[in-house]
Amino acid sequence: MTKINKAACIGGGVIGGAWAARFVLAGIDTNIFDPHPEAERIIGEVMANAERAYDMLTMAPLPPKGKLTFCKTVEEAVEGADWIQESVPERVDLKRNVITQIDAAADPKALIGSSTSGIMPTELQRDMKHPERMFVAHPYNPVYLLPLAELVGGEKTSKATLEEAKAKLTPIGMKGVIIKKEIEAFVGDRLLEAVWREGLWLIKDDICDTETLDDVIRYSFGMRWAQMGMFETYRIAGGEAGMRHFIAQFGPCLSWPWTKLMDVVDLDDALVDKIANQSDVQSGAYGFRELERIRDENLVGIMQTLKGSNGGQGWGAGKLLSDFETHLWKNAPKPEAKASDEPLRLLDIKVNPSWVDYNGHMTEYRYNQCFADAADALLRMIGVDMDYVADGHSYYTVESHVRMLAEAKLGDALYTTCQIIPSDDKKLHTFQWLHRASDGAVLATCEHLMLHVASAENKTIAAPAAILAKLKPLADAHAGLALPEAVGRHVGQKKA
Amino acid sequence: MTKINKAACIGGGVIGGAWAARFVLAGIDTNIFDPHPEAERIIGEVMANAERAYDMLTMAPLPPKGKLTFCKTVEEAVEGADWIQESVPERVDLKRNVITQIDAAADPKALIGSSTSGIMPTELQRDMKHPERMFVAHPYNPVYLLPLAELVGGEKTSKATLEEAKAKLTPIGMKGVIIKKEIEAFVGDRLLEAVWREGLWLIKDDICDTETLDDVIRYSFGMRWAQMGMFETYRIAGGEAGMRHFIAQFGPCLSWPWTKLMDVVDLDDALVDKIANQSDVQSGAYGFRELERIRDENLVGIMQTLKGSNGGQGWGAGKLLSDFETHLWKNAPKPEAKASDEPLRLLDIKVNPSWVDYNGHMTEYRYNQCFADAADALLRMIGVDMDYVADGHSYYTVESHVRMLAEAKLGDALYTTCQIIPSDDKKLHTFQWLHRASDGAVLATCEHLMLHVASAENKTIAAPAAILAKLKPLADAHAGLALPEAVGRHVGQKKA
Repeated sequence: MTKINKAACIGGGVIGGAWAARFVLAGIDTNIFDPHPEAERIIGEVMANAERAYDMLTMAPLPPKGKLTFCKTVEEAVEGADWIQESVPERVDLKRNVITQIDAAADPKALIGSSTSGIMPTELQRDMKHPERMFVAHPYNPVYLLPLAELVGGEKTSKATLEEAKAKLTPIGMKGVIIKKEIEAFVGDRLLEAVWREGLWLIKDDICDTETLDDVIRYSFGMRWAQMGMFETYRIAGGEAGMRHFIAQFGPCLSWPWTKLMDVVDLDDALVDKIANQSDVQSGAYGFRELERIRDENLVGIMQTLKGSNGGQGWGAGKLLSDFETHLWKNAPKPEAKASDEPLRLLDIKVNPSWVDYNGHMTEYRYNQCFADAADALLRMIGVDMDYVADGHSYYTVESHVRMLAEAKLGDALYTTCQIIPSDDKKLHTFQWLHRASDGAVLATCEHLMLHVASAENKTIAAPAAILAKLKPLADAHAGLALPEAVGRHVGQKKA
Repeated sequence: MTKINKAACIGGGVIGGAWAARFVLAGIDTNIFDPHPEAERIIGEVMANAERAYDMLTMAPLPPKGKLTFCKTVEEAVEGADWIQESVPERVDLKRNVITQIDAAADPKALIGSSTSGIMPTELQRDMKHPERMFVAHPYNPVYLLPLAELVGGEKTSKATLEEAKAKLTPIGMKGVIIKKEIEAFVGDRLLEAVWREGLWLIKDDICDTETLDDVIRYSFGMRWAQMGMFETYRIAGGEAGMRHFIAQFGPCLSWPWTKLMDVVDLDDALVDKIANQSDVQSGAYGFRELERIRDENLVGIMQTLKGSNGGQGWGAGKLLSDFETHLWKNAPKPEAKASDEPLRLLDIKVNPSWVDYNGHMTEYRYNQCFADAADALLRMIGVDMDYVADGHSYYTVESHVRMLAEAKLGDALYTTCQIIPSDDKKLHTFQWLHRASDGAVLATCEHLMLHVASAENKTIAAPAAILAKLKPLADAHAGLALPEAVGRHVGQKKA
């Protein structure tokens, strides 16, 4: 897969910093240049948000983090980079100068993307020597979570550049969407601008306040748009007759006097005060950091939900997440079946928001999920991966005995360990512990039994030699360990 | 809580039918009048979709369904109804006539809501004798899932009417939002109209195709808008300085030439063809029913995700769902601790889309979830409900031993049964079976042990007499049952 080998971010801040986080978390060494005196602090905060979000977003193995280097000049930052992302303030002269400077210093084959939310790339590439590799890659806040980048070429941009950019975004979990023709504000901000203009009139004219307007969005079409867009939604609204029927029915509304969009609202002090005050009433109970945290948790949850959609095939941003995870698994170093006479550490996780009850405690069945995921990790370690399962064999869990010893709380870092219990060639019998990372305390244990099966026949058969050859050294290394006291215990059995 | 006692839907179809589904599933007897020759079929289909969606949406106990009655006249339909919802085609003369007819026949105190998506209520109430009780209640498709209803009064509508309407929507799981002043298209359709106009230009001018436009929405701000709206999202974008900072930064864009909204696009044949053809390319691989199913599953998943948000307190539509469930639990008949010498049937569920792996099989830990939820149902049966837990006592699960015997598949209806195993006053020891409803086959068993605790001290104590008094008859009735063969078994134990 085409990929970015080294990245440079010119301009940090909320957008540039989040691009850096995307790169670094995907294992790409990244240089950053930002003359702002607080650049390191701001980028550090964005990076922390991104890491927190990724912890919740996926259990797939992220590669070792890329190295983040703060540079003193644009020239130093772009050296050796094959993707350079410009995210300086939104002024055409400033952006054009910075991009011209990048162009002069960078490898002529390096891609140069601009984060501009509205300036046409033709404007920005005007003074470049190698303008064919410059384009707009317009992301959406929070950039570390929302996958979209609008890719827009200028008059001098080559078609190959846009295709290459799109391909290179995939391995960092992003969705590059090529816009056919450049216009100011591209596609997304055109749509947002339309809503923003109309919304301002509704507030100014006292039709509703900001909270009501937001409620109208989020209790209705917002949830439609998270998964389908406008046209696909309306296709369904058209019923069996589809899009044509919808347009026939609702097209005429266009000529009704339903809008004040022809006028631009005057954002005078009175209107700014009104909006700011209404916004305080609406959201003031939550601090900025708190709202940001809630937003990110919700985005994670929505993407995870969409990942399970469409019979498990994934849908929209969830399909993209699923593809990203497949990519991560494929590129992760095969977990080495490294024999050890200690229990194997299999899983490192955090208790995420969707796992807790209203007391903030991890829900009962999530303990089982931890142990089941750890068993999957052991399987991958001995060669039972997606390809193996696709070939018609697998291990099925048939029994598990979980003892819950202490609570896990929201945000707790946890890990599991596993001892292999001697068994025969058809069985994989283990004893697992769930630990709290901060002090190693055991929160739960699980005695777990899997059988090796031929899936189509649904029949238990011995595992093949290749699998057993990987399992045996692990099991042998544990042969000298005493059996955990709880092995062979039944529910309610008194302690010995 | 103020509630609707009897509803009438004048006009079926996709909107009216879905209102009827909302009412009926909330236990409200509902009359329906629609002269369309296929009204019964259409409403039947909407009702089936709604029931399927509710099955996935909540485990809370819906009341027994209300009675749905097809009537031959408006007069017959409105008799005895205290909420009458008009959903006839979007023509002002037709709607006004129907509403005037409803007004003449209905109880003068009955609320009359119109589903119009754009006509001002003052226009509709013009000829009414009792116009003060008439308003717009504008819902969003699919009405059985999306909770929003914009409530808009006309010149003659009383304020009390809007407040009453809002209060009466809560117990049917909807969010009534009162719009301060009437304008054509109210708030939601103003915003949608703005995006629709701008979007049509983008397609006509070949800036992008319909699929790209939809992708731009759903991979980015669509997911923001599902949870927050526009103003709250921008408040975060403003950073610590909030809304004022955001407006200062982005307000000026308003005067840029970023829009063609001043013109209305001509929806000529060429443009209709273009949109319809692009839409076929984008979505044609899925049939209408399939898209509808995927949409509904995604909406369910998004609402469930938002229910777990904000540390389990819920957020937006998820908070609303949580409140709706609390209402359902409070109003459900207390599960009778009816002693039986058969195992108790505790839980009836369906395998929902978020529970299956990519093979369409229920994931391992969801078996545990079924048994945990069944244990909760048993607890409620003996008086351990939310109030009891809030008072400082609860039962905590300490051990469970699950044996998985067969697969459960997406959509399978399942139920659990439970035998109480003799124990002491501190313990609740049970043995549970998970059955497939179609043939009663046992898919899994669970031996389960809970301890009664004083939560604050985290200390095991005997359950109080009131709880034991409810538990004892259930346990006594099971005393004569043979112990299930698997009780006291350990993992991997050979069958006797």
